[in-house]
Amino acid sequence: MLYDKNNLNIAYIGGGSRGWAWNLMKDLAVDEEISGTVRLYDINQEAARANEKIGNMLSERPDVSGKWQYKAMDSLKEALTGTDFVIISILPGSFEEMASDVHLPEEYGIYQSVGDTVGPGGLVRALRTIPMFVEIAEAIKAYSPEAWVINYTNPMTLCTKTLYQVFPGIKAFGCCHEVFSTQKIMAEMLKDMKGIAGIDREDIKVNVIGINHFTWLNSATYKGEDLLPLYREFTEKYAEEGYQIETEADQVRNSYFNSYNKVKFDLFRRYGLVAAAGDRHLAEFCPPWYLKNPEVAKEWGFGLTPVSWRVKDLKDKMEKSSRFLSGEEQMELKHSGEEGIKQIKALVGLGDLVTNVNLPNMGQIQGLPLGAVVETNAVFSHNSIRPVSAGQLPEEIYSLVIRHVVNQETIIRAAFSKDKDLAFKAFANDPLVNISIKDARNLFERMLSNTSEYLPGWEIEK
Amino acid sequence: MLYDKNNLNIAYIGGGSRGWAWNLMKDLAVDEEISGTVRLYDINQEAARANEKIGNMLSERPDVSGKWQYKAMDSLKEALTGTDFVIISILPGSFEEMASDVHLPEEYGIYQSVGDTVGPGGLVRALRTIPMFVEIAEAIKAYSPEAWVINYTNPMTLCTKTLYQVFPGIKAFGCCHEVFSTQKIMAEMLKDMKGIAGIDREDIKVNVIGINHFTWLNSATYKGEDLLPLYREFTEKYAEEGYQIETEADQVRNSYFNSYNKVKFDLFRRYGLVAAAGDRHLAEFCPPWYLKNPEVAKEWGFGLTPVSWRVKDLKDKMEKSSRFLSGEEQMELKHSGEEGIKQIKALVGLGDLVTNVNLPNMGQIQGLPLGAVVETNAVFSHNSIRPVSAGQLPEEIYSLVIRHVVNQETIIRAAFSKDKDLAFKAFANDPLVNISIKDARNLFERMLSNTSEYLPGWEIEK
Amino acid sequence: MLYDKNNLNIAYIGGGSRGWAWNLMKDLAVDEEISGTVRLYDINQEAARANEKIGNMLSERPDVSGKWQYKAMDSLKEALTGTDFVIISILPGSFEEMASDVHLPEEYGIYQSVGDTVGPGGLVRALRTIPMFVEIAEAIKAYSPEAWVINYTNPMTLCTKTLYQVFPGIKAFGCCHEVFSTQKIMAEMLKDMKGIAGIDREDIKVNVIGINHFTWLNSATYKGEDLLPLYREFTEKYAEEGYQIETEADQVRNSYFNSYNKVKFDLFRRYGLVAAAGDRHLAEFCPPWYLKNPEVAKEWGFGLTPVSWRVKDLKDKMEKSSRFLSGEEQMELKHSGEEGIKQIKALVGLGDLVTNVNLPNMGQIQGLPLGAVVETNAVFSHNSIRPVSAGQLPEEIYSLVIRHVVNQETIIRAAFSKDKDLAFKAFANDPLVNISIKDARNLFERMLSNTSEYLPGWEIEK
Amino acid sequence: MLYDKNNLNIAYIGGGSRGWAWNLMKDLAVDEEISGTVRLYDINQEAARANEKIGNMLSERPDVSGKWQYKAMDSLKEALTGTDFVIISILPGSFEEMASDVHLPEEYGIYQSVGDTVGPGGLVRALRTIPMFVEIAEAIKAYSPEAWVINYTNPMTLCTKTLYQVFPGIKAFGCCHEVFSTQKIMAEMLKDMKGIAGIDREDIKVNVIGINHFTWLNSATYKGEDLLPLYREFTEKYAEEGYQIETEADQVRNSYFNSYNKVKFDLFRRYGLVAAAGDRHLAEFCPPWYLKNPEVAKEWGFGLTPVSWRVKDLKDKMEKSSRFLSGEEQMELKHSGEEGIKQIKALVGLGDLVTNVNLPNMGQIQGLPLGAVVETNAVFSHNSIRPVSAGQLPEEIYSLVIRHVVNQETIIRAAFSKDKDLAFKAFANDPLVNISIKDARNLFERMLSNTSEYLPGWEIEK
Repeated sequence: MLYDKNNLNIAYIGGGSRGWAWNLMKDLAVDEEISGTVRLYDINQEAARANEKIGNMLSERPDVSGKWQYKAMDSLKEALTGTDFVIISILPGSFEEMASDVHLPEEYGIYQSVGDTVGPGGLVRALRTIPMFVEIAEAIKAYSPEAWVINYTNPMTLCTKTLYQVFPGIKAFGCCHEVFSTQKIMAEMLKDMKGIAGIDREDIKVNVIGINHFTWLNSATYKGEDLLPLYREFTEKYAEEGYQIETEADQVRNSYFNSYNKVKFDLFRRYGLVAAAGDRHLAEFCPPWYLKNPEVAKEWGFGLTPVSWRVKDLKDKMEKSSRFLSGEEQMELKHSGEEGIKQIKALVGLGDLVTNVNLPNMGQIQGLPLGAVVETNAVFSHNSIRPVSAGQLPEEIYSLVIRHVVNQETIIRAAFSKDKDLAFKAFANDPLVNISIKDARNLFERMLSNTSEYLPGWEIEK
Repeated sequence: MLYDKNNLNIAYIGGGSRGWAWNLMKDLAVDEEISGTVRLYDINQEAARANEKIGNMLSERPDVSGKWQYKAMDSLKEALTGTDFVIISILPGSFEEMASDVHLPEEYGIYQSVGDTVGPGGLVRALRTIPMFVEIAEAIKAYSPEAWVINYTNPMTLCTKTLYQVFPGIKAFGCCHEVFSTQKIMAEMLKDMKGIAGIDREDIKVNVIGINHFTWLNSATYKGEDLLPLYREFTEKYAEEGYQIETEADQVRNSYFNSYNKVKFDLFRRYGLVAAAGDRHLAEFCPPWYLKNPEVAKEWGFGLTPVSWRVKDLKDKMEKSSRFLSGEEQMELKHSGEEGIKQIKALVGLGDLVTNVNLPNMGQIQGLPLGAVVETNAVFSHNSIRPVSAGQLPEEIYSLVIRHVVNQETIIRAAFSKDKDLAFKAFANDPLVNISIKDARNLFERMLSNTSEYLPGWEIEK
Repeated sequence: MLYDKNNLNIAYIGGGSRGWAWNLMKDLAVDEEISGTVRLYDINQEAARANEKIGNMLSERPDVSGKWQYKAMDSLKEALTGTDFVIISILPGSFEEMASDVHLPEEYGIYQSVGDTVGPGGLVRALRTIPMFVEIAEAIKAYSPEAWVINYTNPMTLCTKTLYQVFPGIKAFGCCHEVFSTQKIMAEMLKDMKGIAGIDREDIKVNVIGINHFTWLNSATYKGEDLLPLYREFTEKYAEEGYQIETEADQVRNSYFNSYNKVKFDLFRRYGLVAAAGDRHLAEFCPPWYLKNPEVAKEWGFGLTPVSWRVKDLKDKMEKSSRFLSGEEQMELKHSGEEGIKQIKALVGLGDLVTNVNLPNMGQIQGLPLGAVVETNAVFSHNSIRPVSAGQLPEEIYSLVIRHVVNQETIIRAAFSKDKDLAFKAFANDPLVNISIKDARNLFERMLSNTSEYLPGWEIEK
Repeated sequence: MLYDKNNLNIAYIGGGSRGWAWNLMKDLAVDEEISGTVRLYDINQEAARANEKIGNMLSERPDVSGKWQYKAMDSLKEALTGTDFVIISILPGSFEEMASDVHLPEEYGIYQSVGDTVGPGGLVRALRTIPMFVEIAEAIKAYSPEAWVINYTNPMTLCTKTLYQVFPGIKAFGCCHEVFSTQKIMAEMLKDMKGIAGIDREDIKVNVIGINHFTWLNSATYKGEDLLPLYREFTEKYAEEGYQIETEADQVRNSYFNSYNKVKFDLFRRYGLVAAAGDRHLAEFCPPWYLKNPEVAKEWGFGLTPVSWRVKDLKDKMEKSSRFLSGEEQMELKHSGEEGIKQIKALVGLGDLVTNVNLPNMGQIQGLPLGAVVETNAVFSHNSIRPVSAGQLPEEIYSLVIRHVVNQETIIRAAFSKDKDLAFKAFANDPLVNISIKDARNLFERMLSNTSEYLPGWEIEK
């Protein structure tokens, strides 16, 4: 694949977004090595066109080094044909469905901190999202089978799996920044415990093993030194009070995203491996140790993110979009911390990169089923991604993880066959669904009914 | 192995028992094909000698066809040397330790219906029992390496595993009657639903797959007809009210052993396979769906067996023993329903038998680790036992089962290495231990302390 | 399945045969427990009608206990609809193709003793036979999906595999008598070495593990005693001169079927397990240790069976058929030694049976791919067959066996996709094809061309 | 591990060698980033001391950038204590044993082109070498457990496996340059077929999968373009005449090392993957397709290397050594093409590297046994090596490879248990040992007898 680094084509599905799309714009703007065209496709065409304008305004700024042309596209076909890369970052459905996913289970005593990955909310979101990914995968197969496809959409595992299920030859992978935060905690730890300041998170080398949002590190080093003994001391030191990294983003957001990493520390004490995702995600994968009720969650120091916050956040961003369009505000030029551009550059041939991604298991995690989408490191090089052998999960963690892997396989089969009873098997088997089978069925039916608009062909009572 | 069917030797370890030993006596007494000597060994020598006398009194009765000689033996060496069969049925420790196993967790909100297999109680009982089985296995290796060894002691899986771990060439297997009850339910079902009365449980042919006390049937037939569709109707019919088989034994016992099979029916509705153990056992293997608290258990129609009942029961049996010895009471001649004698006869060469046993996995359950002790059918023939291929567990059940398989492997490693932290990993990973890690540790330490007499070499605070 | 043992239906595909069909008639004739109808279907309708008459003449004889009605059927549909059992025993193609399979490779220095299982001949025969089995499997699926299907046709593994590939729910198994001969050798051995005469081959209990015609015994007992130590002595005693069992059948046949069992003994000396098929079959699975050329085969004491013999044999049997029809000759009433009727009786519910069969691997042989057709013991009971766990092949044998398992998987994929290049991969990978790749291709093309009549849809140069 | 790049310690076991040791000296001499001390240990102390002098003379030269100090050490303990790296490159035994390994089998019609990896010669060499590696591994465990250990000695797989068997925590890997030659052929191919000259072999990116000397590439790219279609054309073009890369080294050597790559091309035509080792090695892993006799080997265009050549070559090098010591000749400053120094630099933290190495399988090759030493790419970074997931071997190649993997496991068990019969099982199972079992045993005994000096504790007839 001879990529022309000055004339790359990136198709962005969900290109009307005000979060990830803007991050991409910024990251492209500050990069000096590549340029080309970004095709913005969104079912909200207006939003895509707004972003087209915002992106082009940015490219015209003299302080911007990476000059890219932004084009809103009217169809997947147009967006995909001839593209080198595809980025998928969509919101499946509206906040209305998300509110049902996250909050309806609360009536049954089931609390979720995010509700987009596992648990009742993650499952129903998956059922809604999978048909969208079927459509996208078919379009990629038809119009850009050689393109590299980067997915950011949750539930990460099932979205990525759907792409491969529909088009086994796809060159797709899923990206998630949760591991980065854990690297940052390690960098903070070196400051706190050893007085070594200013360490970049990239300098913390980790071996990643697990499934998205329930990822683990069985090795972490700094300059070749094993960090796990120090992490043991660190977790003991902060097990009770917790340890919070205050980042700018957190300030902008608010307490709903707070995390004192106490879940992470507890899991380390239990199992001896570093859990490498935010506490809000980790808690959802376990039996209700940390999510028994809002009080317990509070004791563990993490917030439950209500959908009302997301509604408010979107309103803020739409206002910001207007200010960008009117020129009232300018986009701040600063790297987002995401790795998408780095990965694209490695694939284009501009230097190898080892980082964590979600890919079908081909042996990189020994003991998990082949074909299940797992998260490990991979080597990115010219037109190639190869997972790094991560080893095996310790048995105790394996028994927590396999439950979700099995559930995810069931969910995808249910989604493809539109089989409600099969989907319910997975629902009732989720560790958070710690209620009677009758209540579980009742909740399940209500949740499906609330999202039925996105489940054509299913037999759902309304 | 040319067994002399008229001169067989059976060593009974735990031969002072008033339950299983008496059942053996009765079953031998009513059998007309084999005879020989039963060597009774027990750390309670007095009890063994009482049973020697009771057994020999029985053999002298004119209405008894199977004439056996009973001999109390003073050492394992004497009991084992030259024996053809070894039966192991011991009580590990006293009721005091059992009370701690079963009831101490209640202070922490953890309820157990039996407490001898999994859960906190099962784990601590295992730690206490494994060293005893190490001693027995070493003695068998030394004195009767060619003998067939039948284990009845719980925790079945870990006791059997210990025998193989110490002496890989051992010819041992574990027997459990829980599957029989499920066959009886099917026989009752045929009466209830089809009006076919008088079916023997042996006529219900089943394919057994699972681990002891968490065993499943993926096939059940009567005269070649598939019973699962009927069982589906049956479970729907009785899901709410439950269905109780009133057996004589249950009357003798009492409500602590009641079962309305509602857990069994619920598991069928969840997973589509027949759970083949009593509800009291099944409930302990699941997340606290059925054992959240005593009220929930009651709603599900099964009792929690208190150790106080066992104390009372023993007292009754000791009085019965006195009456036997004085001739005041005579043992009732009736087959116990256990299969030990049938198995012995098949091994001696008196006809093949297919029945369920616990053996190390050599592939009979695809997908579970090789070497883990699993329960399936096996073909018993002359000096040979071969497991029957049971297939694979459905994924959803697999994810429940593997958690215990993994825990059991951890427990045995912990027991052999006397590693308290490792044992605690398994403890905290048990589905019933749905409490904070700190409380879990506290409970664990107290339980170990209560059983420390049986844990030589462990570092335990008293 | 409530079978009416006095009114069973057996469909015989290949029912015009003069070998296996007559054996079936005899076995049915001497059995007193079952009766019913045998439907004879054959593409050679005349032959089927002749057998109809021969069968019915037999049933009319007063000395015959098992009275069956024989009916020639004109279509698969008629033959199958409503049948309880299906027997498949066909000759795929004519002796012309068989001559090409067996003898053309000799021009290239490749010698085959049978040429119907593996080697160049076995492969080409498989390609020719698989489409026939596709048709049969589809008919069974359509007309008798609940019937038990017994296959006797070679190549056994691939015929049985085809049935399952086309109709996964089929209740089919493959039967082969090769293991019986090895049991007979063991019985002879007990006479020769221990002076114990008159042992039935059924009394030699064996554990069967392998693939058809390359099957092994890792356990053999007589009355519970391990026979392997004696077999070691026996093989040492006869390694040089060989040991021949002269059976009546062999006399009738001739030197082409001779076997001194020296290959069997050599394989035992190499690997320590008993190879359980005739030397003529075993030799074809190995590198050309025993089949380098006809002289080497002669040294090893086994004959290469020429197709000319089969032509002659058929002529003899057709004359015999005429004599049967004219009443000039009467069928001799004697059990054939095959187990088909025993198996049918067990499936009907007339008593369990443990014997060896070919079935898709569900774990009965640990380490071979799931789904590959393997040969082990199985428990036959009322409407049920369950394979017995056979264990694992020792690594050295595994490496010989896996080569054929892999080849067979390739052959079946090639046959289903009509992919000549894929078929050639398997051809060139056969251990007997020890020639240059160019010669191999040339031979392959010529062999395909000779059998092209049976390969519709393939691109073959004629 | 905070390595001091200006003060590294490298222990060289076999440090008296005139081939690999001199290559190391040259590669260190031309490198500008690292320096330190090389400790030379050899059972031939005189040779080590000569190399000490030669190395230090080199370091004194003004045209040398990498200044290293060379020290001959008298014991493993001295050489290892405190070292950062260990290089193992020894000649196990003398040319006398090697002559027996390579040439004695010729009396039995078995021809070997190298005789140091598999085949009768490779097996006997392994038996001789393993005890030496046991000693080395124990010394590393005792004196330098944290050091990185690079093995160059053949048989690579079994030497590396021995290190891990004795000391599971060892940080060892095996290096081999055979893949590099295949990359060079691809570079030549681009010149020949596309006119693109001057490509470095490092620019050909390959995915490596297999076992040492029988390694395969399932992907090869240049600037992101798939090279396999071109390689297909290339192999067709040169299948008959072959294609020879004339390198300087080949000229210095002679026809014994010639290779026309016809074996490589033939294997590609058979299996569709690129075999990535020299033809002399590849031929030894196959059935005697290419090594039937010297004429066949000649037709395939590769030479059989006689030990007489090695004797002559050593004589030449010893004379060269004298000239170095006397100053009559100067070492030529030129990179050897080996990657050892690059790997050391990556481990020290001077930049990541992806290259092929031999490591125990932890899943990098799906389908081969865990723990078997396999060859794949790995990521070298600061104090870390992680294998890259290579995928699965196609089934047809798998069946060739597994035979050797199985044999190698048998050999190592035989060597550790000094079990002659077990070793013979592997011997007789080697694809080249295509002779009668009796001749095989005779050859085996003679070969063992010839190497018995290095097999203490074995029962060998002399």
